[in-house]
Amino acid sequence: MEAKLTLVGAGPGDGELITLKGVKALKNADVVLYDELANADLLSYAPEHALKMYVGKKAGDASFTQDEINGLIVRLARKRGNVVRLKGGDAFVFGRGHEEMEYARAHNIQVEVVPGVSSCIAVPEAMEIPVTRRGISESFWVITATNRHGALSDDIRLAAQSKATVVILMGLSKLSEICELYKHFGRGYLPMAIIQNGTRSDEKSVMGQVWEMPYMAAEKKIGSPAIMVVGEVVALHPAYTMEYLKSIHY
Amino acid sequence: MEAKLTLVGAGPGDGELITLKGVKALKNADVVLYDELANADLLSYAPEHALKMYVGKKAGDASFTQDEINGLIVRLARKRGNVVRLKGGDAFVFGRGHEEMEYARAHNIQVEVVPGVSSCIAVPEAMEIPVTRRGISESFWVITATNRHGALSDDIRLAAQSKATVVILMGLSKLSEICELYKHFGRGYLPMAIIQNGTRSDEKSVMGQVWEMPYMAAEKKIGSPAIMVVGEVVALHPAYTMEYLKSIHY
Repeated sequence: MEAKLTLVGAGPGDGELITLKGVKALKNADVVLYDELANADLLSYAPEHALKMYVGKKAGDASFTQDEINGLIVRLARKRGNVVRLKGGDAFVFGRGHEEMEYARAHNIQVEVVPGVSSCIAVPEAMEIPVTRRGISESFWVITATNRHGALSDDIRLAAQSKATVVILMGLSKLSEICELYKHFGRGYLPMAIIQNGTRSDEKSVMGQVWEMPYMAAEKKIGSPAIMVVGEVVALHPAYTMEYLKSIHY
Repeated sequence: MEAKLTLVGAGPGDGELITLKGVKALKNADVVLYDELANADLLSYAPEHALKMYVGKKAGDASFTQDEINGLIVRLARKRGNVVRLKGGDAFVFGRGHEEMEYARAHNIQVEVVPGVSSCIAVPEAMEIPVTRRGISESFWVITATNRHGALSDDIRLAAQSKATVVILMGLSKLSEICELYKHFGRGYLPMAIIQNGTRSDEKSVMGQVWEMPYMAAEKKIGSPAIMVVGEVVALHPAYTMEYLKSIHY
């Protein structure tokens, strides 16, 4: 038996958006440690004997600390063999996947990384909003709303002044602050979308201009996990103009 | 028979990094129009009867214009049914996928989009370089090196001053210009990686500080397609220091 950690990106939510390599890893798992964001149906690819353990954190719920997860990975890999760490989206996009990789390797555990379909691109895409579009957006900037100290990330300040399509993850609690920042830079008119549970059957979304999004998100009761997209590409969505026309009755 | 376009992201190169949904789409294809960057092995998922046609463009080779590809999609969808447009990485990341979608829909062709694993995240990841890392990088910015007029993208100027991890696609011909820009802003010391044919068996890469990369890439004969990553996260790679120590003998 070989102690091993396999980091697998589960994709954005739709159970068919995992890769062939990800499924193969699950089929060879002795343990699956999975997050809140991963699609739980994927667990059925793992063998009967495999231990399946939920270690994810919902917003505000600190059931497992990162130190505890790191410890679990090492102990279970040594005791049982191949630990698959199944994470929503891609493990290296704000997923602490790299920290887990380093910790395991420092404990002489072999590590394999299986990239996944990241929500930051796929969730807008599934709504038919492209993060890039020739002549409209030559780049996109993916940002976590809060830094490690819980404050609004400094990068958002610069991003709000850039021409990039800005994709903000884990940002719903900072929505008003983010919109104020755009308004401060005279860009409250930019098109914006907020998408909850993207690519899943319970997907919910709202579109409008930056300045009105706190009202619209509240009215439509958008909750976490949600992805925000700010930039002219959002206006490419066929329903954008109609949603906007409805919204100006506020 | 229903005329349909299915845009499928083929992933970064490794044939197992396509999604289950992408394979399903290929199995239902009547036509596959594929690009240079897609892994050609994936064509074997398509049925025997399906027409498989290469429409990709290598750098500098303009075998098919975008207008011609758009026309092909519509004509083949009407004549044969389900056209799968197989694109390297993800179809909405600099892939003109959205333009093809709009064109097809304007001609009353039904469109489905299947997100893929994007090279911008997966290629560094497969080298164990995370685009984000808590305490080091709170964001990443993905940019195409050249705008539609062939000049260096303006976004790179702002990106070179930001704290984001910067991922530059299709940028090898602009390498010297890009490095000069970073030096101009006093950031020639930042760690940088260039990766050719990422996740494929012929992957080739080089790492160092920004200022020295034009020399190192030339010495190692790095060619297109290549992805560049600039930012402190590159120094997380276990070989970074060693490559750097070798490089300072220049």
